[in-house]
Amino acid sequence: MKNSGFLGDLIASILDRGTIFSGVSDDREVEQLCSELLSSMGEVSSRRIGSAILTRYQQMDDASRLSFFQFLNSQMDIDVEAVETAARAYGEDRSAANLAALSDAAEAPRQELLRRLNHVPGATSALVEMRKELLNLLSTHPDLKRLDLDFSHLFTSWFNRGFLVIRPISWHSPANILAKIIQYEAVHAIQDWDDLRRRLQPDDRRCFAFFHPSMPDEPLVFVEVALCRGIPRSVQDVLRDERSELDRNDVDTAVFYSISNCQEGLRGISFGNFLIKQVVADLSVELPQLKTFVTLSPLPGLVRWLKGGDSPVSQEFVASLDDPQTLEANNDQLRSLAAKYLLTAKRQDGLPLDPVARFHLSNGAAVHELHALADISANGLKNAFGVMVNYLYDIPKVESQHEAFVHTGDVIASKSVAQLANAKIPAPMQRIVEKEES
Amino acid sequence: MKNSGFLGDLIASILDRGTIFSGVSDDREVEQLCSELLSSMGEVSSRRIGSAILTRYQQMDDASRLSFFQFLNSQMDIDVEAVETAARAYGEDRSAANLAALSDAAEAPRQELLRRLNHVPGATSALVEMRKELLNLLSTHPDLKRLDLDFSHLFTSWFNRGFLVIRPISWHSPANILAKIIQYEAVHAIQDWDDLRRRLQPDDRRCFAFFHPSMPDEPLVFVEVALCRGIPRSVQDVLRDERSELDRNDVDTAVFYSISNCQEGLRGISFGNFLIKQVVADLSVELPQLKTFVTLSPLPGLVRWLKGGDSPVSQEFVASLDDPQTLEANNDQLRSLAAKYLLTAKRQDGLPLDPVARFHLSNGAAVHELHALADISANGLKNAFGVMVNYLYDIPKVESQHEAFVHTGDVIASKSVAQLANAKIPAPMQRIVEKEES
Amino acid sequence: MKNSGFLGDLIASILDRGTIFSGVSDDREVEQLCSELLSSMGEVSSRRIGSAILTRYQQMDDASRLSFFQFLNSQMDIDVEAVETAARAYGEDRSAANLAALSDAAEAPRQELLRRLNHVPGATSALVEMRKELLNLLSTHPDLKRLDLDFSHLFTSWFNRGFLVIRPISWHSPANILAKIIQYEAVHAIQDWDDLRRRLQPDDRRCFAFFHPSMPDEPLVFVEVALCRGIPRSVQDVLRDERSELDRNDVDTAVFYSISNCQEGLRGISFGNFLIKQVVADLSVELPQLKTFVTLSPLPGLVRWLKGGDSPVSQEFVASLDDPQTLEANNDQLRSLAAKYLLTAKRQDGLPLDPVARFHLSNGAAVHELHALADISANGLKNAFGVMVNYLYDIPKVESQHEAFVHTGDVIASKSVAQLANAKIPAPMQRIVEKEES
Amino acid sequence: MKNSGFLGDLIASILDRGTIFSGVSDDREVEQLCSELLSSMGEVSSRRIGSAILTRYQQMDDASRLSFFQFLNSQMDIDVEAVETAARAYGEDRSAANLAALSDAAEAPRQELLRRLNHVPGATSALVEMRKELLNLLSTHPDLKRLDLDFSHLFTSWFNRGFLVIRPISWHSPANILAKIIQYEAVHAIQDWDDLRRRLQPDDRRCFAFFHPSMPDEPLVFVEVALCRGIPRSVQDVLRDERSELDRNDVDTAVFYSISNCQEGLRGISFGNFLIKQVVADLSVELPQLKTFVTLSPLPGLVRWLKGGDSPVSQEFVASLDDPQTLEANNDQLRSLAAKYLLTAKRQDGLPLDPVARFHLSNGAAVHELHALADISANGLKNAFGVMVNYLYDIPKVESQHEAFVHTGDVIASKSVAQLANAKIPAPMQRIVEKEES
Repeated sequence: MKNSGFLGDLIASILDRGTIFSGVSDDREVEQLCSELLSSMGEVSSRRIGSAILTRYQQMDDASRLSFFQFLNSQMDIDVEAVETAARAYGEDRSAANLAALSDAAEAPRQELLRRLNHVPGATSALVEMRKELLNLLSTHPDLKRLDLDFSHLFTSWFNRGFLVIRPISWHSPANILAKIIQYEAVHAIQDWDDLRRRLQPDDRRCFAFFHPSMPDEPLVFVEVALCRGIPRSVQDVLRDERSELDRNDVDTAVFYSISNCQEGLRGISFGNFLIKQVVADLSVELPQLKTFVTLSPLPGLVRWLKGGDSPVSQEFVASLDDPQTLEANNDQLRSLAAKYLLTAKRQDGLPLDPVARFHLSNGAAVHELHALADISANGLKNAFGVMVNYLYDIPKVESQHEAFVHTGDVIASKSVAQLANAKIPAPMQRIVEKEES
Repeated sequence: MKNSGFLGDLIASILDRGTIFSGVSDDREVEQLCSELLSSMGEVSSRRIGSAILTRYQQMDDASRLSFFQFLNSQMDIDVEAVETAARAYGEDRSAANLAALSDAAEAPRQELLRRLNHVPGATSALVEMRKELLNLLSTHPDLKRLDLDFSHLFTSWFNRGFLVIRPISWHSPANILAKIIQYEAVHAIQDWDDLRRRLQPDDRRCFAFFHPSMPDEPLVFVEVALCRGIPRSVQDVLRDERSELDRNDVDTAVFYSISNCQEGLRGISFGNFLIKQVVADLSVELPQLKTFVTLSPLPGLVRWLKGGDSPVSQEFVASLDDPQTLEANNDQLRSLAAKYLLTAKRQDGLPLDPVARFHLSNGAAVHELHALADISANGLKNAFGVMVNYLYDIPKVESQHEAFVHTGDVIASKSVAQLANAKIPAPMQRIVEKEES
Repeated sequence: MKNSGFLGDLIASILDRGTIFSGVSDDREVEQLCSELLSSMGEVSSRRIGSAILTRYQQMDDASRLSFFQFLNSQMDIDVEAVETAARAYGEDRSAANLAALSDAAEAPRQELLRRLNHVPGATSALVEMRKELLNLLSTHPDLKRLDLDFSHLFTSWFNRGFLVIRPISWHSPANILAKIIQYEAVHAIQDWDDLRRRLQPDDRRCFAFFHPSMPDEPLVFVEVALCRGIPRSVQDVLRDERSELDRNDVDTAVFYSISNCQEGLRGISFGNFLIKQVVADLSVELPQLKTFVTLSPLPGLVRWLKGGDSPVSQEFVASLDDPQTLEANNDQLRSLAAKYLLTAKRQDGLPLDPVARFHLSNGAAVHELHALADISANGLKNAFGVMVNYLYDIPKVESQHEAFVHTGDVIASKSVAQLANAKIPAPMQRIVEKEES
Repeated sequence: MKNSGFLGDLIASILDRGTIFSGVSDDREVEQLCSELLSSMGEVSSRRIGSAILTRYQQMDDASRLSFFQFLNSQMDIDVEAVETAARAYGEDRSAANLAALSDAAEAPRQELLRRLNHVPGATSALVEMRKELLNLLSTHPDLKRLDLDFSHLFTSWFNRGFLVIRPISWHSPANILAKIIQYEAVHAIQDWDDLRRRLQPDDRRCFAFFHPSMPDEPLVFVEVALCRGIPRSVQDVLRDERSELDRNDVDTAVFYSISNCQEGLRGISFGNFLIKQVVADLSVELPQLKTFVTLSPLPGLVRWLKGGDSPVSQEFVASLDDPQTLEANNDQLRSLAAKYLLTAKRQDGLPLDPVARFHLSNGAAVHELHALADISANGLKNAFGVMVNYLYDIPKVESQHEAFVHTGDVIASKSVAQLANAKIPAPMQRIVEKEES
């Protein structure tokens, strides 16, 4: 970190420029402004017009926003004939001019429009917010998906891993950032600032986030880590109010117990996998005594699967698990069912049904261990009867396991989990599958 | 700058990640590595393969680099038929899937390759360097211009104004950055550290640069500013060794006396215009007493024009100006010729012949004043017989002047310069143009 | 702020050294350790022994701490005869050696002990905490005041204004610092983080604190400021939950509505006066539209005075003010009584009875206006029947008013307040003072 | 470094306040201003008067400064009778009031004056500079030593180790700091910026400095370190222009080859010992592969001793060493003489004659090895016939060796050096000491 000081100054000045486009107004129609922004040569006026468009957008009601999106979607679309003509020309003569013409023709003008809007200070956040609203409209207006493709294409380029910055989040971090952490935590809700403090302040707790230099007040994704001695058996253990902090010399395991994406407007631009690996790398350097890197993860689809048509157990049994005592009496059974779910329940494309499993397995992790009564929050019980799973990040194996998984879809699991998955379900609990007449 | 501290930390960590891909080696052919990088799913291995490719590239000799570029240029090109098919399909059914297919087909795979290479820490600088070498090959291998189009497309997106950061450069800046300033100064060479110190340390001297957060050690473009009382008549005045510093309350004019682009690999991705306007804005806030913002600029093509076929003066007269005394005796004449040059000498596209004039005029500046014996360095005499020009940045007029210039090509000039341009050339100096037979 | 980056790094490294002496243990008696620390030459071992002493102190119970203080107080005191001898010698021969001997003799060895303890990283905070405990013992062990004189002498030197750093406190400040602000607010309690956010985040609210570089996590004193249009008439107005933020162009008045000292261990080492003046200076530069700088201050001793022997009103009247309706009906009367209190109620030394008045008046401020029902919290009613006062910081007058006040004790007040102080108390409320027989 | 960001901001603001007292002028005599500064109550006006005094001082010529110092020395001295009276009173009644009176009386008023001057922003540097000039006068005006005692007393308190900050100095450090490093290097002169770059930029070179937060632009002391494989045999080896940088995995030895105090005005306030130990500690953490920490130090007094009355060799022999060939032929002899010098040549107080030896030995280091032809610069030859010495910092032994040294004065040396010291000097070189008649 030889020159952190200068770099600090460097990025600091982003905000000096003014975080937001400050209410430039222009009476013309927004469509006209968009045309003008695209036609403006030399970019002299682009900042003013861009500010006017973004300001206008912020003042729009839902209906106006929809029609603005529809304008971008249909009026700023590709001219198909131009593409065909350009492609033919390039096919005949592979000149740079022909390639340039083809590239131009094959890119919807709205993409350049978004690029120019981004010249305005503070625009990046505004555009991410704009896409969030666009995404919300996709279910009712699926045709807007074309517009979203251009957002998505640009954001993938702008939020390239090479431009992301990892930051530790601690009790010394700015309150405005921490307020965002409270707001965005998606797995184990943070009750209040005291709860947050318990997760950040102890020396055996860590948190890391990715940021983009143009959105310095907005974490993109963050992960909460507990440094432990051995693998904890439940999230209650991890989040207990009263616990004695571990000395840094006594820890051997880093547990990733919560990963949250923060920006809905960046859906599909994935950072989580990079973040985990970066954190593993950084922690390995800081604390060479760490030998094990695991998650403590939910199984968000377990109960749905147990209640669905592919369930291996009877619905009576499933229903009985709502009773705490029954639940407690069936720890082993639940772990076994969870193992079956993770290892055998698949989507049509052959990948695991469980989204969290898909995420970690495609990162190259392996299913390591299962714990019953590990998340007894309302949510944890509702979704997974309290079961949680450890995914193991064994760095030397991560790349080959990733390759194996993405090519075969096979779930890599520890011996003990594999055994659990193979355990026979006791007859009384089995689902009676009626034979279809043949 | 409420949260500069956190932001500082934020960007600082870019370097913490390791500034450079550290010598990952892989024995396979680089072409095979490229294919693998493109086919790798989930991006787990992309960083390792990307590092291997960049490391390999750095070890290549010129011939290997050429063939690597040729591989990218021809093997990783667009499949024209696929584009045509996709365009037709999208023409028939404007579905998102069809648009996605068209976008995919119309983008050369090398573009995605470069994007993935950029996942590697430190890759952005390496790719900028790579393009620099590519540009050097274009004159002998013009077909590589297609590859360059993809570099250029990506860099335009990555170095979007919204991601650039302006930083004051001062005698308090890190030495490694200052060494770059010495190296990159392109207008009035900086002799040594003492010379640099004279340009940076006095309170009436400023310097500003644009940076990109992923290349924190590399200025992209910088401008040197002298705060003056009135407009100085020569660069010798500005750069004099012995001069008494002006009190900040006595200055009324900011003179941009040197603007240098630093990264050859970013040729054509223009920042200078943004930089000047940002500096004008920032200085106006800091020093409201500043009333005038002008450049003190060279006329790099004046002598060439005077020696060329369109010269309004005889070659005997031009030759006589090599004599210092003659030169000195012809101050007014030289200013008049320079005015004619700036206002009437045009390229085929109707824009001014002088590149510096094109830059400032298309930024919305106006030709303000001309000075003889204003740059009596070897370079200044050789290119412009010592004449220099002030371009005036009159902020309220900048946008309309820009629009006027880019639409009409007309050079906007002050009354005094216009008069100079209209002055009649004394007969003895006039060029005798032989009438063509009709 | 040309080189803030480097300075940032600079101070950052204070913590890198380790914030606290880390549990060095040593079996010897603490008294013996103290002797050894004092006798250690070359300071090689001072850090180890110092750490051991501080660690030992932290483990002591109250009784042990008392006897440790008593040891310092009596065993590490001045040798009076040595002083007399040295003084005589210096009187006879004003040599440097004799002066050095006198200075040595006249300084209690405990002072050098404290200086050496401060070599230990993190010791400054620990010593401030130590003095806090010492101060708590002074009422029961007044002889320890001698030890406190040495603490006080050193702290005055160490916390010299020249070493203090002013920092804006905002919603972007680190949470650990903000938690301290919540904890230390002494005037208008901060309920929770939402309350804090309301005081820090709006653009028309400011907060500033003094820090010492060796205690970077501990504010020393802070002031909360509301930017207003005109002077607000109550603290309820200022702290209202729902209010619309003022545009920065609409404000003309800065109201200091809360000043809190944070470190009990620094009692008597005054920073508040410096802080207010620095904030006035800084705000004047940032917001030249600010014309008025006032406090909105409590009168902590008003009720006590009204209930005491010098009260100008009858106790029946005072008692009647506990009734809200009576209180509300006597606004003018209360303001008049408050004016009398501020302007006429004096201590034996001739200075105002009210401690807050003494603070601001000795800073050079003037009593500007009085408001009834201005602090209707339980505390505000109990201490001052809801009355609050504005002290005006009129910078050009501050120095002369300060001089006048400290030399004469005369309270400088606005005309309107002076009139209030002179208003006659209606007969029914007057206190009947029985004439003493002569 | 959890909260470096905030701390960065924190210290940055020191400069925001303005680095220097800005030309406050006041027509009165400086003596009168001093009296007023001392008598000013409440400190309201202290900053203005303090600025006026410091400004006045800067404008004084040498004669005026001398009489200003003399004024402080004699007029602002201790009142001896007051001390005696106060001492007696305290002897009779050990009350806090009596102690306070005694402390007051026993402290020269100039000390409080200096403390109040330090309230002015930027004053700390100015006072250090003032003492530098005072020190220059001491040889001609030894009576001013009394004034210096008070400077020294205050500076010892202000520059307490607890307030010092260690900073790595690198090629990324601000140029203004690096210019100071060039200026202050006292052992092996830095020729120019290229020379500096060679000492800072390679990954196997380090430099560290102590700073005080109130003088952020001024290093107090710095040390240059070469990371090596084994102990280098000469400083030429270390500073060679052309050398291949060592990989960080190949180094096992840290060589402190230059330590320079920067502030003459802080003479006698020693930091070097703290710095070396801090650097050893920091490097041990960063590079656990480092096994050996040694200096490569000059023997500034060797030649003087060899030419003096205690020399064990004949002056003919000493004179012959001016011849390069003779010098080269006597490597072993020179090392042996150097060993004798270090181990046996003593001052009257029993400590080694060599000042560098005194410094390192009193830090707890040991004489480890001697090298001939190790510094063949003009300086190195003149002072020590090219011989250099390694002092070994063996951390576990440092404290006990320090104690042994300061109590006995015995020089701790390695076996090989001890043998060298005991080697018999060949007869032809021996000095003939004439026997005194008994």
